[in-house]
Amino acid sequence: MDNPVEAIQSVKLDDDNDTLILLDQTLLPNEKVFLELKEMKDVWDAIYELKVRGAPAIGIAAAYGVYLGTKKSTAGTYEDLYEDFKKVKEYLASSRPTAVNLFWALDRMDTRFQNEKGKNVLQVKAALKEEAEQIRAEDEEVCKSIGTHALTLLKPEWGILTHCNAGTIATAKYGTALAPIYLGQEQGYNFKVYADETRPLLQGARLTAWELQEAGVDVTLLCDNMASIVMKEGKVQAVLVGCDRVAANGDTANKIGTSGVAILAKHYNIPFYVCAPLSTIDLTCETGEDIHIELRPSEEVTTTWYEKPMAPKDVKTYNPAFDVTDHTLISGIVTENGIAYAPFNDSLPKMFQQKK
Amino acid sequence: MDNPVEAIQSVKLDDDNDTLILLDQTLLPNEKVFLELKEMKDVWDAIYELKVRGAPAIGIAAAYGVYLGTKKSTAGTYEDLYEDFKKVKEYLASSRPTAVNLFWALDRMDTRFQNEKGKNVLQVKAALKEEAEQIRAEDEEVCKSIGTHALTLLKPEWGILTHCNAGTIATAKYGTALAPIYLGQEQGYNFKVYADETRPLLQGARLTAWELQEAGVDVTLLCDNMASIVMKEGKVQAVLVGCDRVAANGDTANKIGTSGVAILAKHYNIPFYVCAPLSTIDLTCETGEDIHIELRPSEEVTTTWYEKPMAPKDVKTYNPAFDVTDHTLISGIVTENGIAYAPFNDSLPKMFQQKK
Repeated sequence: MDNPVEAIQSVKLDDDNDTLILLDQTLLPNEKVFLELKEMKDVWDAIYELKVRGAPAIGIAAAYGVYLGTKKSTAGTYEDLYEDFKKVKEYLASSRPTAVNLFWALDRMDTRFQNEKGKNVLQVKAALKEEAEQIRAEDEEVCKSIGTHALTLLKPEWGILTHCNAGTIATAKYGTALAPIYLGQEQGYNFKVYADETRPLLQGARLTAWELQEAGVDVTLLCDNMASIVMKEGKVQAVLVGCDRVAANGDTANKIGTSGVAILAKHYNIPFYVCAPLSTIDLTCETGEDIHIELRPSEEVTTTWYEKPMAPKDVKTYNPAFDVTDHTLISGIVTENGIAYAPFNDSLPKMFQQKK
Repeated sequence: MDNPVEAIQSVKLDDDNDTLILLDQTLLPNEKVFLELKEMKDVWDAIYELKVRGAPAIGIAAAYGVYLGTKKSTAGTYEDLYEDFKKVKEYLASSRPTAVNLFWALDRMDTRFQNEKGKNVLQVKAALKEEAEQIRAEDEEVCKSIGTHALTLLKPEWGILTHCNAGTIATAKYGTALAPIYLGQEQGYNFKVYADETRPLLQGARLTAWELQEAGVDVTLLCDNMASIVMKEGKVQAVLVGCDRVAANGDTANKIGTSGVAILAKHYNIPFYVCAPLSTIDLTCETGEDIHIELRPSEEVTTTWYEKPMAPKDVKTYNPAFDVTDHTLISGIVTENGIAYAPFNDSLPKMFQQKK
């Protein structure tokens, strides 16, 4: 393939062969294996076993799983097919019960099904296939728009630091925080990217460093505690991160450690940008105070990925999965509809009104 | 033993049995094994194999090794014994050629030897034994004084964050940054300590969390990137760190990540203290700009401690061992002679003039 980002797309729909082509993310960074899934059961397994991860990527896989499952139905009428469809939907919903995007995608397939009322079963099956592809295409479009807007904030040859993985493999294509990196690469921007390894689960080391290296981007892996020295040494001109949820005032929940990076960036006068699809902006959530922080098991800190324990047995740990970055530390929030600046209480609602 | 800190002293001299009792730090945190060394060769091995680490602890071990080696000499005169002593000294110097404290201790044993001129061989051997014990006792005294001064900065029930290991096992007893924790514990201060794991080599997880837990101190292990959230949540009232070298203006080189912790502490208005024996304060070094930062191998970031690689093969890394914390971020520098405050150019030289 010509495009290096296409070569590492994690969810692709092979329409000619009714196949979901999935990058097995559990094998990264050591092996690059694309699975070819033709059965709903295989899609369920892939989601359950975290072979596909990243909210948008899970949604796309589930949507295509709905199509593959429903296609097998021998029902002859719209109504009978819907009965089978509901079983397929329920089955796939059980693969990862905490993944919001999974349910969103399944519900959207349901809506499409109902919009096809009066059509014959073949027409409905074709519509489901089309809808899955549309979900994928829309996500790619959102990521590309975020990338295009974010790229206006950056200059060629800049050093860019990122935390965790908000990359192409978590989405249909391009990612969110990494979208401007890939678009810039296509235009010869020649960025130097610094990737925090992102303890405890090392998404930066395993995923971000891997996908950027695969795509030919100049990437340097850092331990999280090295962000300060690279900023001090003038190696970083901007920080780009993704997000899990943005509150109405701009407070942003993202992978643990993000708030620390934002504080360092402010100290060193480096702009700090959040890349946020509108789907992650929650105007009903007033501030970061309202965002619940998940606490995760000790073993992630004391043993995961390790040959032998690297901390004392039964040591107490504190292992929050996310933190909230105060809106005062954020230079701009980049959405698919443009860039919101402070005061975010005013600018974020406008993002929803704007045309692309 | 009554005192929990005594139970984990990493270098002890058993004078009655002419034995160096050494905690094998390569087995931490999974096993607590005390080696009983009676031969100079065993001491050489222990230093070479990093079973003893921490500059002061290495110096003490080497000094005792000099005694054990010289004791074996069959020389009958002061002059002949000195010939054998020089061979012992040279041999031990080869165990870890980059350890400054090793050479400092060996030279000090040499000076003592020369000060005993005119004494018989038994008297000289006894003097060497006494000198080794004195080096150990002085280090304990320095640590205890640092702890006593630092404790005046802290209040009972405080949460204290530390980075890397500046603890009892790196020194004769008490450590530097952890000295006030242990002294406070003896006085019922009931601190809650937050220990950064300290990537890439995890000294915080393997050593600091281990020794505090062993000593019965309430310790919580964090990934480095979690320091921001615990500070934000009000869990931390002071930061204490050790140091490798302090410049005349107060700029402080310490384990990578220290400068980031200092910036976070300033952001959250939490005092940040450096615990620095006078031996680490280098008034001939004007600022941190003059301190050379060692770059270490990629494998520490990409593979060390891991069952399988957790970063892409051949990924570029940046792995500085230390960083420099700007003096403007430091609330006070605690020495064995008192606490220096800004402007450090004035206060640090006075520390050398003061009586203990």
